[in-house]
Amino acid sequence: MSPTSFADIRALMADLPQPDEAAQAAAAERDAQLTKPPGSLGKLETIALWLAGWQGTPPRADKISILVFAGNHGVTAQGVSAFPPDVTAQMVANFEAGGAAINQLAKLTGATMSVAALDLATPTGDFTQGPAMDEAATCRAFAAGMAAVTGGDLVIPGEMGIGNTTAAAALSAALLGGTGAEWAGPGTGLDGKGVRHKAEVIDRALALHAAAVSDPLQALARVGGRELAAMAGAILAARLKRIPVVLDGFVATASAAVLKRLDATALDHCLLGHRSAEPAHRRLAEKLGLDPLLDLGMRLGEGSGAAVAALIVQAAVATHGGMATFAEAGVSGKSG
Amino acid sequence: MSPTSFADIRALMADLPQPDEAAQAAAAERDAQLTKPPGSLGKLETIALWLAGWQGTPPRADKISILVFAGNHGVTAQGVSAFPPDVTAQMVANFEAGGAAINQLAKLTGATMSVAALDLATPTGDFTQGPAMDEAATCRAFAAGMAAVTGGDLVIPGEMGIGNTTAAAALSAALLGGTGAEWAGPGTGLDGKGVRHKAEVIDRALALHAAAVSDPLQALARVGGRELAAMAGAILAARLKRIPVVLDGFVATASAAVLKRLDATALDHCLLGHRSAEPAHRRLAEKLGLDPLLDLGMRLGEGSGAAVAALIVQAAVATHGGMATFAEAGVSGKSG
Repeated sequence: MSPTSFADIRALMADLPQPDEAAQAAAAERDAQLTKPPGSLGKLETIALWLAGWQGTPPRADKISILVFAGNHGVTAQGVSAFPPDVTAQMVANFEAGGAAINQLAKLTGATMSVAALDLATPTGDFTQGPAMDEAATCRAFAAGMAAVTGGDLVIPGEMGIGNTTAAAALSAALLGGTGAEWAGPGTGLDGKGVRHKAEVIDRALALHAAAVSDPLQALARVGGRELAAMAGAILAARLKRIPVVLDGFVATASAAVLKRLDATALDHCLLGHRSAEPAHRRLAEKLGLDPLLDLGMRLGEGSGAAVAALIVQAAVATHGGMATFAEAGVSGKSG
Repeated sequence: MSPTSFADIRALMADLPQPDEAAQAAAAERDAQLTKPPGSLGKLETIALWLAGWQGTPPRADKISILVFAGNHGVTAQGVSAFPPDVTAQMVANFEAGGAAINQLAKLTGATMSVAALDLATPTGDFTQGPAMDEAATCRAFAAGMAAVTGGDLVIPGEMGIGNTTAAAALSAALLGGTGAEWAGPGTGLDGKGVRHKAEVIDRALALHAAAVSDPLQALARVGGRELAAMAGAILAARLKRIPVVLDGFVATASAAVLKRLDATALDHCLLGHRSAEPAHRRLAEKLGLDPLLDLGMRLGEGSGAAVAALIVQAAVATHGGMATFAEAGVSGKSG
């Protein structure tokens, strides 16, 4: 299932798996018997049922796969980031050495973590001058993302790439409309002047690629990046394997938006873990109909917001699986 | 430090410990060197600094103490709960057997959990007819709460008590103003008619005790309950030992409000873990200046919302303590 063309990707999406309604109903039946007032665990209850539906079993969250994809962006030549592009490769080394935020969160959740550095020595094209990637390069990155999904209870796609909030903003605009000013934000730390410049860079890219980007996969190629294509591939591969996904922040959600534009149900197996402090993430989530589980002011990427959210998913599994029923505990139900 | 009178409680509050500014500054200095854009871990960063200040060391959250207090309420004679009062003792047995939601969350966070059943065979007085408790009974419960705090990195006071959202609503109104209708909610599952009845019951209690409740400790005695007094005692004891506290939902926050009314700084060592779905919790938190970390639609009590929030606190400690610095990882800082 390794796509080499956009037609291959579309073919993979032709018959997306749906949730297992029997497993979901069984989880709902158990939930109703647990020693708590009905509904009193709020989103922990809905998460348990959502997991059960996709996993086709009682909900589990022991085996979490955090998949970090890194890419370099030609658009950094336009001065769109507060950090120099060398930081992408330096952070990959930091991931491999265990020193980044996501490593600590992986340890805390008991997750495995893989890091894929996608042709860092060859940045994508500067998309103010031409396409970031051609179809073949986009598919190679998409396929790398698909290949990273090997199983488990839950998948978290994450990313690193200096310049990639510019790509995510341009991609969001290409997929969902709006101008650079509506989608550009401070990223890793631009000031107001820097954000205005970033918006202009995005507007130039949108003008250059306007004719092509009505196709979501062309939009991904023209103004996206390798780690964005890889995350889209990972989200699709998880769907094909019926593994639920927790989405991270702005860049991961922009990647997911490509799939949503191709099929309105393509993100049904996804939970948005966290609302990023990157301002456009709120707009993007709303347009995709995704309601973030957490809002902790994080804006780091790497999959870090989703990894924190995975702790909540584990709480949902722990309560659903471990609690006694009213009958087991000899507790009386509601009066009257 | 076991109080037997309200004067004793006031004396314990005369000289509350303050945060260790040097420990907090050391944590801030470390935070600034970690391999992430400044501020990009959002509340995880502020939590790490808050812990460091109260703990007087680098932040820790390994040893979490969940302290569950249970009480019975005479006001249940007025038909204010969706569940019969026997459920309080049944749920205590469930806590002891490990079958409740809080047990699963304690296991997930690695917390120890203690359960104190406070004179369940003798419910407090029906506060529509007279005081719930006298000064001596209030102080015994408050002292039991203080005694439960024996150390650790973080304290989570929780509760169980059929009828106690009625007590929490009456106590909130007594401490902060407003009518029964403004503070009454469905609790474990009343319908609209039930909530209106509960509001009338609270209004009757407020009218009966109006002259006494300008004193926050008298309010706790008149319309509170043993588990509410115990939680207030636990929160104060934690402060005296400089142990940070994660507050749970409506009932725990109403208990905390007693201390806040006695001293505006008394909750500076507390983080509000979760906004309860019980509607009045939003009003209560706002009046106390507490900003909830999570909003997951939970409304169970037991300390469950705070225990889920403790996972986020552990994420804050894990990232603060485990991440590499820019120098250690050889990562470049911000440009220009």
